Amino acid sequence: MKRSGRLVAITNYFLENPRVHKNLPSFAEKYKAAKASISEDLDIIDQMFRAEGLGHLKRIAGSAGGVMYIPESPMEKGMEFVDQLCERLKDPDRILPGGYLYMSDLLGEPHTVREIGRIFASNFSKLDIDVVVTVATKGIPLAYAVASFLNVPVVIVRRDPKVTEGSSVSINYVSGSSRKIQTMVLPKRSLEEGSNVCIIDDFMKAGGTINGMVSLLKEFNTNVKAIGVLAEADDEEEERVVNDYMSLVKISNVDIKENFISVQRGNFI
Amino acid sequence: MKRSGRLVAITNYFLENPRVHKNLPSFAEKYKAAKASISEDLDIIDQMFRAEGLGHLKRIAGSAGGVMYIPESPMEKGMEFVDQLCERLKDPDRILPGGYLYMSDLLGEPHTVREIGRIFASNFSKLDIDVVVTVATKGIPLAYAVASFLNVPVVIVRRDPKVTEGSSVSINYVSGSSRKIQTMVLPKRSLEEGSNVCIIDDFMKAGGTINGMVSLLKEFNTNVKAIGVLAEADDEEEERVVNDYMSLVKISNVDIKENFISVQRGNFI
Repeated sequence: MKRSGRLVAITNYFLENPRVHKNLPSFAEKYKAAKASISEDLDIIDQMFRAEGLGHLKRIAGSAGGVMYIPESPMEKGMEFVDQLCERLKDPDRILPGGYLYMSDLLGEPHTVREIGRIFASNFSKLDIDVVVTVATKGIPLAYAVASFLNVPVVIVRRDPKVTEGSSVSINYVSGSSRKIQTMVLPKRSLEEGSNVCIIDDFMKAGGTINGMVSLLKEFNTNVKAIGVLAEADDEEEERVVNDYMSLVKISNVDIKENFISVQRGNFI
Repeated sequence: MKRSGRLVAITNYFLENPRVHKNLPSFAEKYKAAKASISEDLDIIDQMFRAEGLGHLKRIAGSAGGVMYIPESPMEKGMEFVDQLCERLKDPDRILPGGYLYMSDLLGEPHTVREIGRIFASNFSKLDIDVVVTVATKGIPLAYAVASFLNVPVVIVRRDPKVTEGSSVSINYVSGSSRKIQTMVLPKRSLEEGSNVCIIDDFMKAGGTINGMVSLLKEFNTNVKAIGVLAEADDEEEERVVNDYMSLVKISNVDIKENFISVQRGNFI
């Protein structure tokens, strides 16, 4: 096969299979090319991935050597995306009764969700994450987006146990904003002991839900390595129960009377 | 920029932006190349996409002309994937009390979910779908996978109304298997009248839930163009209330006593 065709095929392979170790001979065999030619292909792809802000190819030398695509997006690209998101969130039509903000349309866009996932995955790239954990419902698409770049599975915490998931571990926790006691469950067989976990959710106010997840994950003897939320509400009246987290946007004020929403970049920079 | 670099960059562009109309001059400008060279690049990419079973580039001639990537996966590739899925589902460890099957691990794998999405999107490629609708919780990742290939938004039907979604339309329906009356809600502003909808869910027994979604979608004056479920249970005792659907796998028997599960390809072929 000619170089031009190989570049298209191998580019697709890396984008579909991030963080998978692949040795050069397997490419050489598949595309009937010399190892030296494949090596040159990889240089070209690596250079373009860096130039386009898609990450890089990590080469591993030696007899067990090979290559792996590490998706990492530059900070400026992330900031540009977050600034656009902030602009869209400022639309006063989003204000709902009670000072809530309508975000379901944004979370329904696969492209937007994917870009959010790319930013978190870039930031958590070096943490050796084994699994992404989220709580039903709105965090689910974000969790899959992050997981697809990290190439790890997703585990979903539920608020109600389901018969189709077998025996489960449950905890009770106090919701930060409503002060109500709530329940969270996770199927027993869903997580391995000692896993490195990354928690993803769409929204955090005082942090009660995330704190609940942290407690539940302790029952499974896992290590919470990172917490990522799309939006945090900056509520001065309430004390936050979670401190070590990363947010993309911060909603500091939803003024129903003045029909005004104040949204800034979160703490991800 | 040299052809080799352009091929990597443009391949990535198409994979990230399926079904987006792009005109040739915009590529020519971005990569500082002649339109004729870009046109040759597109021929190479189109040929490789077809060879690798990724779909094709649709060229639109004339002054408003351009190009669009249509992801379509060949039937054989889909069958091979579904056969592997069937093998994994046959594992007797999956049997849960009540004859249910544990599938959360499979649905937690971003790569598996993406391949399932690819098959549905390929099959619904010509239906002019505007939006993918699913019901919380397990269908959500599948719905996003389908939507990402069709490049359309996802709308999630909930079983409980949430204050963060504003005013909503709700219906009551009878669940097929439990014969219980249940509720489904959808925010008023989530769907436009006249949209072409595709319904995606993880599992269908008698079809009560899907039937409920169809009724709810009627309230929004939308057209249900396609229904896709990952797994259908072949239960001879119960009459199915939904007939026109596509399933990838069919679970015909979960025998708790004999510790045996019977799984076949669904009706997608």
